[in-house]
Amino acid sequence: MSWLETSTDNCTVHRTLDLVGEKWSLLLLRDAMNGVRRFDDFRRHIGLSEAVLADRLRKLVAAGILESVAYREPGSRTRYEYRLTRKGWDLWPAMIALKQWGDRYTADPEGPPLEVHHADCGEPLRAAVVCEAGHGPLIPPEARTRPGPSARPLG
Amino acid sequence: MSWLETSTDNCTVHRTLDLVGEKWSLLLLRDAMNGVRRFDDFRRHIGLSEAVLADRLRKLVAAGILESVAYREPGSRTRYEYRLTRKGWDLWPAMIALKQWGDRYTADPEGPPLEVHHADCGEPLRAAVVCEAGHGPLIPPEARTRPGPSARPLG
Repeated sequence: MSWLETSTDNCTVHRTLDLVGEKWSLLLLRDAMNGVRRFDDFRRHIGLSEAVLADRLRKLVAAGILESVAYREPGSRTRYEYRLTRKGWDLWPAMIALKQWGDRYTADPEGPPLEVHHADCGEPLRAAVVCEAGHGPLIPPEARTRPGPSARPLG
Repeated sequence: MSWLETSTDNCTVHRTLDLVGEKWSLLLLRDAMNGVRRFDDFRRHIGLSEAVLADRLRKLVAAGILESVAYREPGSRTRYEYRLTRKGWDLWPAMIALKQWGDRYTADPEGPPLEVHHADCGEPLRAAVVCEAGHGPLIPPEARTRPGPSARPLG
């Protein structure tokens, strides 16, 4: 069964994009990965309306990508902050890969506004494709696809 | 300048998502990376309307991510097929990273509908974050950020 003859109904990229493939959701995750946790900080930094921000946070919590944790400052009511779960942090390679592409093709002439480097050696990070036997970084001609266990014919 | 004090106006992740961060655009790129090239094949496989498909293809061509190439079958008028450019193929690590996350968290119980492996050794591919000195795969606590050359204060 070729890819063109395979149903996309259970495509895992499609399902991923249904959960996080909306610009503001990914930008919230970008900020969360950079340490932003509080509603007002997300709102002020990203410039989203309260309604849209609350909706996107709610969806990311429902998907198990963020978790809300109560906190209380002296003299204030209880509020919630939003922390990445393991499931959320597992999107880190995708975020680094998107940033890498953006740094190459969309940055201002002087470079990107944020740099990410390896704490130990100081060298910039790169998103790479490797194989489980440790070969790589690989390029697309070195990859092959085959139908997976849930492949179904296009309806 | 902390990330929270840094303007997001020139964020390269934001600019990337303005170009490709729409579900159907990324699904078109998924299909293109799997060898789909023709308008009718995209339409039939992804199930998009002609109008939406034509719009997304036009935007991806305008962004230099796809290029349209004329072809002509005997007895037919000239048509166009869509091929990934180098700039488009440079999104491959991001696509593999999104698929990897989806395979882990969204696949049917029996597994994903498509598997990608290393042609040479047959092992599955993985998206990894490494550093330019060759260390890795790295995890988020091993990374640090700092303001880049185009960092500007939040307005």
